[in-house]
Amino acid sequence: MSLIVQKYGGTSVGDVDRIRNVAARVARCRAAGDDLVVVVSAMAGETNRLVALAHQMHSEADEREKDVLLSTGEQVTVALLAIALNAAGCPAVSFLGHQVRIATDSAFGKARIKSIDATRIGAALGDGRVVVVAGFQGVDGDDNITTLGRGGSDTSAVALAAALHADGCEIYTDVEGVFTSDPRICPNARKLDRISYEEMLELASLGAKVLQIRSVEFAKRYRVPLHVRSTFSEAEGTWVVEEEASMEDVLVSGVTYDRDEAKITLVRVPDQPGLAARVFGPIADANISVDMIIQNASAEGTTDLTFTVPKGDFRNALAIVQANARELGAAGVRTDTDVAKVSIVGLGMRSHAGVAAKMFRTLAEAGINIEMISTSEIKTSVVIAAKYVELAVRVLHDAFLGGRQPAEAS
Amino acid sequence: MSLIVQKYGGTSVGDVDRIRNVAARVARCRAAGDDLVVVVSAMAGETNRLVALAHQMHSEADEREKDVLLSTGEQVTVALLAIALNAAGCPAVSFLGHQVRIATDSAFGKARIKSIDATRIGAALGDGRVVVVAGFQGVDGDDNITTLGRGGSDTSAVALAAALHADGCEIYTDVEGVFTSDPRICPNARKLDRISYEEMLELASLGAKVLQIRSVEFAKRYRVPLHVRSTFSEAEGTWVVEEEASMEDVLVSGVTYDRDEAKITLVRVPDQPGLAARVFGPIADANISVDMIIQNASAEGTTDLTFTVPKGDFRNALAIVQANARELGAAGVRTDTDVAKVSIVGLGMRSHAGVAAKMFRTLAEAGINIEMISTSEIKTSVVIAAKYVELAVRVLHDAFLGGRQPAEAS
Repeated sequence: MSLIVQKYGGTSVGDVDRIRNVAARVARCRAAGDDLVVVVSAMAGETNRLVALAHQMHSEADEREKDVLLSTGEQVTVALLAIALNAAGCPAVSFLGHQVRIATDSAFGKARIKSIDATRIGAALGDGRVVVVAGFQGVDGDDNITTLGRGGSDTSAVALAAALHADGCEIYTDVEGVFTSDPRICPNARKLDRISYEEMLELASLGAKVLQIRSVEFAKRYRVPLHVRSTFSEAEGTWVVEEEASMEDVLVSGVTYDRDEAKITLVRVPDQPGLAARVFGPIADANISVDMIIQNASAEGTTDLTFTVPKGDFRNALAIVQANARELGAAGVRTDTDVAKVSIVGLGMRSHAGVAAKMFRTLAEAGINIEMISTSEIKTSVVIAAKYVELAVRVLHDAFLGGRQPAEAS
Repeated sequence: MSLIVQKYGGTSVGDVDRIRNVAARVARCRAAGDDLVVVVSAMAGETNRLVALAHQMHSEADEREKDVLLSTGEQVTVALLAIALNAAGCPAVSFLGHQVRIATDSAFGKARIKSIDATRIGAALGDGRVVVVAGFQGVDGDDNITTLGRGGSDTSAVALAAALHADGCEIYTDVEGVFTSDPRICPNARKLDRISYEEMLELASLGAKVLQIRSVEFAKRYRVPLHVRSTFSEAEGTWVVEEEASMEDVLVSGVTYDRDEAKITLVRVPDQPGLAARVFGPIADANISVDMIIQNASAEGTTDLTFTVPKGDFRNALAIVQANARELGAAGVRTDTDVAKVSIVGLGMRSHAGVAAKMFRTLAEAGINIEMISTSEIKTSVVIAAKYVELAVRVLHDAFLGGRQPAEAS
């Protein structure tokens, strides 16, 4: 008998009928003999509705109270799912973050889980019940309700799996698993059977929406095998697991993109020690995450300093940079919000030379100009004009991942 | 400086604008120097929406999970009100039932408050904040969420006022106070300035919807002065307070009615010891509250036993009685669902004879037949045909409470 944590996302519990379907699925797994802890998100659209309510009340609602508000979304779902399970003859009980002490820090809206008290869940499982836990929420040391940020239910599920020493964690979603690329723009994209935590981390942080980054970090740290699969079919999905030797044979596991990028360039800044700190310190203080940074020193002792930020932070970041530009001695500030990032990810890049070069050549052959480049051990990202995103993803996918054949490195 | 508990009902917080109005009102009171604890209900319609969701999921949703679901209604309101108050520059913090340990028994859906831990509220007040508390909800000894039943937020407010030794408890609603009768059917009805707990208890249990019965019991027990008043005006409402000598001068304080009555008669039952217990035992076991009971022994050793139940319980009660009727030797069972109860309430009835007689005479003069009579120390109720309700209320109001003059006993 295994202990499995299952997580169902907002689309999977989008209305009463879908919740009933989830209950049927859970009841079948339970009948097959597994102990089950089920983590659910808010019904699709509900979190947005609540955010809009808070925003209607005040454009800058205080974060503590917003978390009190948002956490009701998952509370509604756990109650409805527990009702559906009990109605289906499958004894179940719901728990909220504070009831199973999903202890977090006090960073409202983006709290991090510190610990989970497994006692109460263990007791309920011991009574033969399915335990339904509200995702996305926790409590801080003063019993204030916190939330974990968008996609936080994934992290709730993985953290519960780790705390309970579960045999696995199944992430149910509306797609069939992790794909080599976005099937909406890349018709040759195919489902991956297995992928390493490291690759999944890169894919998630590069724009793949299938898993919250932090949930993958958690899974990696506590070695929780993740199974990403569809709520609406019985097919196997994608296993996210520890690296295996054979994985290095695949040069590239995925091609991903992110349209949420805006570019800012400080033009011809006198190059001096501490320049980067003076530029990025105030931006970090404003809680803006800078993504890619490129600095090119010229012969004349000046440099062009270019970086990207999420589009939503662009105006704030620009205001900060402009306020600094004169003092830094820059000749000007250039911006471009019409850019996007395309990346390739793969463990094989560590041991095979020439992957990045092949990427650049492929893009050049398609007539796509590269504006910025950034590399890490297992990924290469480029910033290009936004209009070329679909084309870039398709040619890179064809070059590295081929057509419709099963996984095969080029 | 006083400590005041204010409670705002669902209509008062029915949408974002109304919540903003409540925030403005609270902020004014706070600026005037009072310490404030504000209890709120769910936004109007929200509890019904949630009940419907539970019902859609299953016709007999388990009570524990239903409470998890329903308690989100108040959680949304406290968050929004705290956001509105903070936005208005009035520092505020929201608390849920479990955060201030509104400890109840485990009777889900109709829990009773056992204690409240005032520590956290006291600390927040000490910090100069307005404390916003979710009404209607508590936690049992195992940290399960409980709800107090319809109108439970009144009880939350009074219990908080008692626990905090508040100087008063203001119940804000969409009417201007407690009226001598229902203004919708009795144009001469007028607002009462003061009324005793005892009278208010009778009025509430006889169908006046302005306060939950249990909240009045709580207020009486802990001597919390209640001020029932309108959210939408600054006018004084009705004070519900301890009995004062002058109150006895008023024979009748209110005329009330209840259409939610159905009548069942066991015809010509052999009169024997234990008959009532054998009839009403099984009905109580089915959790049906019997209201009025009348038994008239005839000369022939048989009796007609008549009682009333809420219309919603009529079919169940009838089935139980019919199952028993043969065994009890009854000649038959008669029913009437087309009845209503009209009552007069007043402390003066204790010391003045003839009040009931005047009531019967007044109804007779209006041609209204009385089907059942029930009396207590400070009220007299009659059951009449439903079609006469409005007429009965008006003639009784005219007879005891007169026209538009200020309160005056007839």
